[in-house]
Amino acid sequence: MDARHGSKERRDGEGRDDGHGLAFVPGPLGPDGLGTIDAYWRAANYLSVGQIYLMANPLLREPLKAEHVKPRLLGHWGTTPGLNFIYAHLNRIIRQRDLDMIAVWGPGHGAPGLVANAYLEGTYSEIYPDVARDAVGMGRLFRQFSFPGGIPSHASPELPGSIHEGGELGYSLAHAFGAALDNPGLTVACIVGDGEAETGPLAAAWHANKFLDPRSDGTVLPILHLNGYKIASPTVLARMPADELRSLLVGYGYAPVFVEGDDPAPMHQAMATALDAAFDTIAEIRARAGRGAVERPRWPMIVLRSPKGWTGPHCVDGKPVEGTWRAHQVPVAAVRENAEHRAILEAWMRSYRPEELFAEDGALVPELAALPPKGARRISANPHANAHKSAPLRLPDLSVAAVAVPEPGRTRAEATRALGAYLREVLTLNAPARNFRIMGPDETASNRLDAVFAVTSRAWQEAILPGDENLARDGRVMEVLSEHLCEGWLEGYVLTGRHGLFATYEAFAHVVDSMVNQHAKWLKSARDLPWRRPVPSLNILLSSHVWRQDHNGFSHQDPGFIDFVANKRGDTARIYLPPDANTLLCVMDHCLRTYDRINVVVAGKQPALQWLSLDEAVRHCAAGVDIWDWASNEGAGEPDVVMACAGDVPTQETLAAVDWLRRHVPALKVRVVNVVDLMTLPAPETHPHGLDDATFDSLFTSDRPVVFAYHGYPWLIHRLTYKRTNHGNFHVHGFIEEGTTTTPFDMCVLNRLDRFHLALAALQTVPHLGACAEHAEQALRDALAAHHAYVRRTGDDLPEVRDWVWPDRHAHPHPDRRRIDGDIMQCGPTTGEEPRPGETLDDWTVVT
Amino acid sequence: MDARHGSKERRDGEGRDDGHGLAFVPGPLGPDGLGTIDAYWRAANYLSVGQIYLMANPLLREPLKAEHVKPRLLGHWGTTPGLNFIYAHLNRIIRQRDLDMIAVWGPGHGAPGLVANAYLEGTYSEIYPDVARDAVGMGRLFRQFSFPGGIPSHASPELPGSIHEGGELGYSLAHAFGAALDNPGLTVACIVGDGEAETGPLAAAWHANKFLDPRSDGTVLPILHLNGYKIASPTVLARMPADELRSLLVGYGYAPVFVEGDDPAPMHQAMATALDAAFDTIAEIRARAGRGAVERPRWPMIVLRSPKGWTGPHCVDGKPVEGTWRAHQVPVAAVRENAEHRAILEAWMRSYRPEELFAEDGALVPELAALPPKGARRISANPHANAHKSAPLRLPDLSVAAVAVPEPGRTRAEATRALGAYLREVLTLNAPARNFRIMGPDETASNRLDAVFAVTSRAWQEAILPGDENLARDGRVMEVLSEHLCEGWLEGYVLTGRHGLFATYEAFAHVVDSMVNQHAKWLKSARDLPWRRPVPSLNILLSSHVWRQDHNGFSHQDPGFIDFVANKRGDTARIYLPPDANTLLCVMDHCLRTYDRINVVVAGKQPALQWLSLDEAVRHCAAGVDIWDWASNEGAGEPDVVMACAGDVPTQETLAAVDWLRRHVPALKVRVVNVVDLMTLPAPETHPHGLDDATFDSLFTSDRPVVFAYHGYPWLIHRLTYKRTNHGNFHVHGFIEEGTTTTPFDMCVLNRLDRFHLALAALQTVPHLGACAEHAEQALRDALAAHHAYVRRTGDDLPEVRDWVWPDRHAHPHPDRRRIDGDIMQCGPTTGEEPRPGETLDDWTVVT
Repeated sequence: MDARHGSKERRDGEGRDDGHGLAFVPGPLGPDGLGTIDAYWRAANYLSVGQIYLMANPLLREPLKAEHVKPRLLGHWGTTPGLNFIYAHLNRIIRQRDLDMIAVWGPGHGAPGLVANAYLEGTYSEIYPDVARDAVGMGRLFRQFSFPGGIPSHASPELPGSIHEGGELGYSLAHAFGAALDNPGLTVACIVGDGEAETGPLAAAWHANKFLDPRSDGTVLPILHLNGYKIASPTVLARMPADELRSLLVGYGYAPVFVEGDDPAPMHQAMATALDAAFDTIAEIRARAGRGAVERPRWPMIVLRSPKGWTGPHCVDGKPVEGTWRAHQVPVAAVRENAEHRAILEAWMRSYRPEELFAEDGALVPELAALPPKGARRISANPHANAHKSAPLRLPDLSVAAVAVPEPGRTRAEATRALGAYLREVLTLNAPARNFRIMGPDETASNRLDAVFAVTSRAWQEAILPGDENLARDGRVMEVLSEHLCEGWLEGYVLTGRHGLFATYEAFAHVVDSMVNQHAKWLKSARDLPWRRPVPSLNILLSSHVWRQDHNGFSHQDPGFIDFVANKRGDTARIYLPPDANTLLCVMDHCLRTYDRINVVVAGKQPALQWLSLDEAVRHCAAGVDIWDWASNEGAGEPDVVMACAGDVPTQETLAAVDWLRRHVPALKVRVVNVVDLMTLPAPETHPHGLDDATFDSLFTSDRPVVFAYHGYPWLIHRLTYKRTNHGNFHVHGFIEEGTTTTPFDMCVLNRLDRFHLALAALQTVPHLGACAEHAEQALRDALAAHHAYVRRTGDDLPEVRDWVWPDRHAHPHPDRRRIDGDIMQCGPTTGEEPRPGETLDDWTVVT
Repeated sequence: MDARHGSKERRDGEGRDDGHGLAFVPGPLGPDGLGTIDAYWRAANYLSVGQIYLMANPLLREPLKAEHVKPRLLGHWGTTPGLNFIYAHLNRIIRQRDLDMIAVWGPGHGAPGLVANAYLEGTYSEIYPDVARDAVGMGRLFRQFSFPGGIPSHASPELPGSIHEGGELGYSLAHAFGAALDNPGLTVACIVGDGEAETGPLAAAWHANKFLDPRSDGTVLPILHLNGYKIASPTVLARMPADELRSLLVGYGYAPVFVEGDDPAPMHQAMATALDAAFDTIAEIRARAGRGAVERPRWPMIVLRSPKGWTGPHCVDGKPVEGTWRAHQVPVAAVRENAEHRAILEAWMRSYRPEELFAEDGALVPELAALPPKGARRISANPHANAHKSAPLRLPDLSVAAVAVPEPGRTRAEATRALGAYLREVLTLNAPARNFRIMGPDETASNRLDAVFAVTSRAWQEAILPGDENLARDGRVMEVLSEHLCEGWLEGYVLTGRHGLFATYEAFAHVVDSMVNQHAKWLKSARDLPWRRPVPSLNILLSSHVWRQDHNGFSHQDPGFIDFVANKRGDTARIYLPPDANTLLCVMDHCLRTYDRINVVVAGKQPALQWLSLDEAVRHCAAGVDIWDWASNEGAGEPDVVMACAGDVPTQETLAAVDWLRRHVPALKVRVVNVVDLMTLPAPETHPHGLDDATFDSLFTSDRPVVFAYHGYPWLIHRLTYKRTNHGNFHVHGFIEEGTTTTPFDMCVLNRLDRFHLALAALQTVPHLGACAEHAEQALRDALAAHHAYVRRTGDDLPEVRDWVWPDRHAHPHPDRRRIDGDIMQCGPTTGEEPRPGETLDDWTVVT
């Protein structure tokens, strides 16, 4: 290690501090300043160790005994003293320059330190009065950590001032940049651990500086904390040659300043020097940008190289601990059982000289209490970290983007193109507030949302060349080919109270499964905290969906993101499958009004038939699921079969099947039910959107067959409807991993979600249709064979399939009229016949 | 763009080549060499364009007409000519130095080029004889591309020589390094697109050079292909300042050589020069390593900056295409409808002068056919890319690692520690073959697999310092804090025929959802190709699982990876939940023998009760699911209740519940069923491991209540058993997102998976137990309340809960004996009483 500011060797169990006070070394901190910042650091370290170990005797007013120690020692010491060191110095620079600063702590494992600092700043006691700034409160502070009913050992929503968990590593820098967007007065200090720095999402996020506008966005100050080791082995960034590390960071576009060593006094001076220099540089960058400079600045960053477990036990049981991977979690472990270990712990804690730091009543001594920033300037109380900007969006009237639908199913439109027009208006209305952004992996235009480029551009700080389109320094569309970065930006943006939309490829949404998971967990925990303000929902648009991968083939076909989100809690997860453009507008309008949700909306971009006018769409989306009377012919009494559908392609194929059935088997009474809000299907105990059983049964009947055409894997419908009366009659058709390179209709055929298979399913599940259904079934099988031959010969779908539209209102024979139609003899339900066993098309039985 | 090798301006629709043949420029290629390599490149480009556009007239022997053009134009031209350029030059260097080389093409979108090259090399026709090297075959080659029943527009398993799909971007470099491990004679050229380079997984994978041993591993030659644009906007790496890009790549540890421009002749010479230099450097590195050098080498890499859509239409409709994002997919689109567009296409194709390239019969002219390498040296025929090394592992006798279990449930062991001992033997037995590796994010020791460090170490090429443990240049354990890199390494390793295990944190396995998804899709498609050899299974061990996140809390609790894998096809996905150490050994032994699977094994690392001796475990795992007679007391006839369990913690809690029931309600006839192989539950039509209905019913009965304690989300059990006779009686307890920071047992209580709730569920679901069950229920509720109070006071579980063991064989009263036991009156099932409605504990009804 390049220990520029090193100290002497020490022996087993020995603490670092060898006397009272540091020897002064020159630097930006005067003797008093150096002494108090070091004392403040010691106080944070003391409180950190106390949280990991103690459940009594918090101030060590009596000798440490086994019963003072928690029975289960859980927590991470290794990263904590470094975080405390950084925290103390951030406090200093905030006060010196009156900075508006939040911090994103990538090593959230170091929660003891972050909690300690929030306690030292007073914020913790303000929010949790039980944990007061006295001896009793300190005892509670210690006890609650990693304790049943207490707080986890990672930074969590319970930590004031935090927008970032830091348990699953990789997202700190993306969160920091997301928080800085549109907050020109804000600095986001982002502490990146050298473990986290090995992850892919973090590695990609360094390049976020290519998207941050120095005029209209805030500052991100990365502080790369190299403490050398992960759980058990060295980290890549800490161990690579120093010149390579510098080259890497310069290559990422930063101007790194290195602070390296382990001797506190010179390290304090070096850190203060580095921060002074960084904020001088930042001030210059902002001034240049204010004067109109457009080149991307080389933002400063700090590299802090300090020992893992700094100031902790040097050796335990003859093995080195401080500065090694052994300091990662609990550096001295057998404290209850082993007096020698207990003595090491006591010496370690006393080395911070708590008697100098805390007064008789346990409160921080006044000269240290005076040190941190005050009020909203405290990192732990900065209102940005509690969504203080979460004003609702101004939203346009949907008519600005609505598609004219004079008759159902006779005109085509691209749903996402209409959405683009709507989003253009959203951007316009909220341009003054600068609180709405769109993120996506370079697919805004490909997903036909490009109307937004009439009023904004893609954010871009590199050179803009002739021929480039829709690039600007202050663009509000964020495009980078990293779903991780897009998702992380949006999370950081909404967690600081702004609104946005992440539009991405359905199949590749799995790339961010784990990020969405962690965000869902954050929302769940935050909702239990009354002091946490709601945050705008995370809105995810899945386009280029599974059914229209015309050339991409199997690798691009996957509807499983829905299943993933459906596993999340009902108070968080929402899944919408609008069947056409106007319903998509209604759904998105709703999503953009919500808070604390993860809204997943699936919508195709291809020209497709339109079903509902705007007014009808508004009513339909308000219901979430409804009977489409205009498509049904059930008349009085119960239908023979319910044809249900969820998703744009399933809706089209269902209606084509219904058209076919109504033409060819007009006496069959068909009800069409369309589901927009998937979470209407489960019981209301499971999800707040769940229909009550009576309503559900009134839609899906209690005993009639339901042929359900569904966008995703069929078993999700079974799972959601499992408790419903009629569930045993549900026959779900969905994606069964039978994709390949093919045409849009053939893709449906392969997965048996096409009109012919759906019509077949209806005929086969309705009992007592008798012999006359056999004609119809044969006709359907013939149609499938004709399609198969045609598509493989021509490469395109049969024109009558491809160009099918819903007929005008007089095309269908009346269901009560018995007739002969071509060679299909029409007959209504009869009684006295046994149901035909027939081939079931329920996908649950498919041999895979 | 720094167009060092630029050419003159051109006009609308004009092709690049302005005459016949290139003007010679000096370089490694002589005049003949330059001419033929350029002609070969033109041939590949011609065949690429033909695939995107034509379904007839492949050799343009007649003027191009609308009907020669496919009705749906699908594919990506933009990246293709650059890939063809690289391919031609790799061919040259392979022949010049007799290299054993495979290539991983990150921009798999450029499949037209890769397919074209495999066709030019003859491999394509050898594998697919219909696609012969003549005019008819060329017609088929063109027609099949992005055509129903044909091949997708991305590199796919159908492409000979490929191990990488390149549709979902990000994994090329990880795959390349995985393929190079333990193949010291192999070079893996890895072409990284500048779009893919923006992804997190790719950004992290550059650091894989810190883990590649120049003595025992092969070479990875990254070729970063900067063509400037993604779908619609510039790429970060192409647009950042040149000095920053160089700094970045040097920072990643490479020695980059830049080849930049758009004028073919100097570009050919520059590329040949760069490859000569790169392989000279590689030879020096290998020689130094052979002499014992241990420092990590600075491996060469090439940066190729060339125009997007190079040699394609310069302008269309007055807008620039070549060198812009407009060249991304189909650069001139209205070819069937618009004669002008058709003329541009025809001129473009003719600019490659097909008449010089292909003989009268359509075969490549002999002087070009002589150009590529021969036989197994062809990139498209290299046996490494078809798992030619896929010899089975040598596997030890399980007894080397088995845990002694003299009686069930009375001794504790750490399951993964036993597995570590087993893996140590696997490493030893296969050390000569060097065909087994373990990957993981720095958790090998934390997951208690550290016995492996007795025979190997972590691979590490950076400095090794005093105090480091288990690091070595040629270590066989790959640890980096990037699940993406671990997973990608293993995928590359198994796809080239070697074996391995990825051990990772259960909650964070979602990080690689999308990678596992793509691997599953690869396996599914590859299985349909008779020429593709099976590849060793992808084995994933999930440890540190949801039930033992003692301090980490909610963010670390997620069992959803199982659900994700369960959505994959039955011919691919396997999920095992061994209840103890010996079953874990049996399961892993089985997994390591399999091919073409994704095996997910979930096993805890904490000390836990052991149930089965090795012999019993072997029998139990062979069955996959079975009745545990020794735990059951059903006697003759059907049991009153089936207590089923899957997973280690659920098994322990189930047996503790059964113990309680047998002590307190001895007349209740209980059957214990343990599930190791989750895929025994669904019907055999759904999964090949599915039990037939008769066997299933013989285990789970056809009408008795089943209380099922399950490791993951409860609804998966409902889904898997949905078609079973007795499904309506399944009451599943699993993870319901009710986690927090707590103790192991309290975690179960919060999710109602603990012994007390399970026993309650049994009492409440068995009808007609009558009033005497109320005593027992009250006792269980009292126990829950006592636990709650204790754990929140002490921070630990009640000792009688924590230290519970299965009683010895005489402890349980005989089920037929009626008795009074304390205040719990014992009574057997009676008749004539109505079932009590009772509170159901089925998690499907939980209000979330």
